Amino acid sequence: MPPPGPTEILAEYVVDLQSEQISSEVFHAAKRCLLDWVGVALGGSSHEAVGCLLAVCRRICSCPQATILGRPERTDALHAALINGLTAHVLDYDDTHLESFVHPSAPVWPAISALAEMQSLTGREALAAFVIGFEVENRIGRVLFRHHDRRGWHMSGMVGGFGAAAAAGKILGLDKDRLAQAFGVAGTYGGGLREMFGTMSKSIHPGKAAMSGLFAALLAREGFTSSKRVLEAPRGFFAVHADEKNLESITEGLGESFDILKNSVKPYSCGVVIHPTVDAVLFLRKSEGLSPERIERIESEVYPMVPDVTGKRDPKTGLDGKFSIFHCMAAALIDGECGPAQFTDARVNDPEVAALRNRTGIRVNPDFKEYEARVRITTKDGRTFEKHVPRATGTPGNPLSDEGLSAKFHSMADPLLGPERALGLEEGIWQADTKESFREILALAVPGS
Amino acid sequence: MPPPGPTEILAEYVVDLQSEQISSEVFHAAKRCLLDWVGVALGGSSHEAVGCLLAVCRRICSCPQATILGRPERTDALHAALINGLTAHVLDYDDTHLESFVHPSAPVWPAISALAEMQSLTGREALAAFVIGFEVENRIGRVLFRHHDRRGWHMSGMVGGFGAAAAAGKILGLDKDRLAQAFGVAGTYGGGLREMFGTMSKSIHPGKAAMSGLFAALLAREGFTSSKRVLEAPRGFFAVHADEKNLESITEGLGESFDILKNSVKPYSCGVVIHPTVDAVLFLRKSEGLSPERIERIESEVYPMVPDVTGKRDPKTGLDGKFSIFHCMAAALIDGECGPAQFTDARVNDPEVAALRNRTGIRVNPDFKEYEARVRITTKDGRTFEKHVPRATGTPGNPLSDEGLSAKFHSMADPLLGPERALGLEEGIWQADTKESFREILALAVPGS
Repeated sequence: MPPPGPTEILAEYVVDLQSEQISSEVFHAAKRCLLDWVGVALGGSSHEAVGCLLAVCRRICSCPQATILGRPERTDALHAALINGLTAHVLDYDDTHLESFVHPSAPVWPAISALAEMQSLTGREALAAFVIGFEVENRIGRVLFRHHDRRGWHMSGMVGGFGAAAAAGKILGLDKDRLAQAFGVAGTYGGGLREMFGTMSKSIHPGKAAMSGLFAALLAREGFTSSKRVLEAPRGFFAVHADEKNLESITEGLGESFDILKNSVKPYSCGVVIHPTVDAVLFLRKSEGLSPERIERIESEVYPMVPDVTGKRDPKTGLDGKFSIFHCMAAALIDGECGPAQFTDARVNDPEVAALRNRTGIRVNPDFKEYEARVRITTKDGRTFEKHVPRATGTPGNPLSDEGLSAKFHSMADPLLGPERALGLEEGIWQADTKESFREILALAVPGS
Repeated sequence: MPPPGPTEILAEYVVDLQSEQISSEVFHAAKRCLLDWVGVALGGSSHEAVGCLLAVCRRICSCPQATILGRPERTDALHAALINGLTAHVLDYDDTHLESFVHPSAPVWPAISALAEMQSLTGREALAAFVIGFEVENRIGRVLFRHHDRRGWHMSGMVGGFGAAAAAGKILGLDKDRLAQAFGVAGTYGGGLREMFGTMSKSIHPGKAAMSGLFAALLAREGFTSSKRVLEAPRGFFAVHADEKNLESITEGLGESFDILKNSVKPYSCGVVIHPTVDAVLFLRKSEGLSPERIERIESEVYPMVPDVTGKRDPKTGLDGKFSIFHCMAAALIDGECGPAQFTDARVNDPEVAALRNRTGIRVNPDFKEYEARVRITTKDGRTFEKHVPRATGTPGNPLSDEGLSAKFHSMADPLLGPERALGLEEGIWQADTKESFREILALAVPGS
């Protein structure tokens, strides 16, 4: 018998980890993810992409089984997972793990919430399943990321399904063997091209991951077979996507540490590598009282991946604007913020914004990290102002506080649910580990229900 | 404006091609595909993998909207496409295009048949949509195949969704712009690892392609956005999967020729590159009256990909046996056939079969084609018998006759439907181009309905 490979070790981890082994610090981090997911999903729930998905669900007479956050409509559990994964990501405002560039919540929470409408599930069980799913997707993602994202894959679509399958498999009580087979199905369903950035199809990637991970776990429970070595096999996930042979780091220290403690929460609804630049622009705008008509030029020194991932010079839609660091610099300088309101089609096509966008530029600094930038603003009177941001707001080392997270949540929940209901929802989330029914916590996330 | 790329050209082709431009020879080839698909789907409909999928569909209360061939159960159209794609492939008995190694029917027919239960569709429209879907998936597949299958992708899972989206988009009447967006969604849903060969997850690949292609077309109709350059974009399908820059051959001669005329139909339910070897074994068995106890050794000279794709030395399950040329040689010599009965778990684990399997071997001949093999059988009394097969049965140049195809169909349809009903179904398929309702042709494929 060969020694167990990473697929089997991860499956064993999922089965064995008990919620008693999860510290209150880790539970708190999971509740922060839950609050952030619910907020961004509510914020994204009115996006027209959701209308398209619901129209297709109507055509297939989808069963009203499970909740879509922020919407009165219900769909079957699989499509609810798909839609709640899409809404979580469509604003590009959901959390990111900078080691893997996976958006960890969007593929995992929707799988858990859909399952919670198919069977009983306590808040504590849901949080524990999330912690496990997070760990699995991020461990696979951080190895993969070093080797393949630059090729053009979208990480959350590639590895999110493993996280969703892990969380769903934990809740369904799959044994080690079936969990490994669920990973097989999730792995062979993985996909998502970076070419879709700037279109609705980008945000379907985590939705599809949520749906396929849940589907994989449900199928494995019924005895559906797959490879039990999807990660390490010669024709498996890593061989095909990354030529990666050294998979030890997937399982190193497993059970001793939790990647969730190094998660990042987004203060701005755009590509995460733009954030330190936005921090700097907002800082200079405020500290120097800079107004757009005074600006000659804005330049940012950035992390090497920035031009490739977020270098759209001439965005045409709100979704496109999220991948244009130039748009973000201009909109942040003019508006003093960089949230969903800066990424409407109208804002992206606004002449004042477009004019300032044409006076922005970037320069790669090979020594910079993904959370680092240095912005220099030149005014028409020849003065220059400079700000170096060593760690963007929301990243480890400079985390968004619980209060900051709460404010972000209410900015999206209050207009939809009303402040009182939104407050009740927030309180339910902070107390999730003591609640008998996870489903009931989220019931408040449906307007007027 | 740059000149139109292959994505746009293919979309235009789908929109523009009219059934008047399709010759009766091409329509006949499409009817052959339909007969073969219905036959293998009926044959695969009782596989336990289907039970797993239907159990999950029950858990999500799937709507009884569309037919599963060979089953009394119905599911929503998307899951019907998934299941009918799986049943079509689970026996490894469905058609193959040797230029691309795509199994063309399994991803496309299920998308068409599911749509036929959502809207009216004549037999002729269904056949034309299939011809178009076939052309699209195979043109993309044949370029991709040269560059990436050896890496470990399963072609039908990778490109089948484009074919399903083309066929569904044609039926839905999408314009060029929306078709290109449907290709975007289908492309970003593409996936499937060869590691799954020998498990149920292999046959979910064409099912998933059928489902996601249909889903992509339905979404695009609602205005869901995607890249309109999925094939050629710098972070698109070919750049990510194949580093392929020369995409002209995708559109060369488009509209002038039809790849469907070079399709292969399988006489044996196993990996297609095994077929010439099986031809030779069956020939020698019959011509020389060879019985298993006389055999000292069976050796086959084969196409270079054979060991990699079908070299399982020690298969454990029926599904595994389909990728073991050694099992196929032994079973064909003992049983005198190589159909579904030779790929049960019991047959693969039979001691007599296993013993003869251990006396088989292969040797690569770098000059051999995928449809070529030379078998040498040595008997215990020291005699040798040799047979060279230059073109396997069912491949272009040595096609399965309509009668041979009909016999294959009835071998699977008769036990399930009874000979009379099966005959009615076959007649309906041969006359499909004159039938008002495509749905009604297939209604006979449900037992006892």
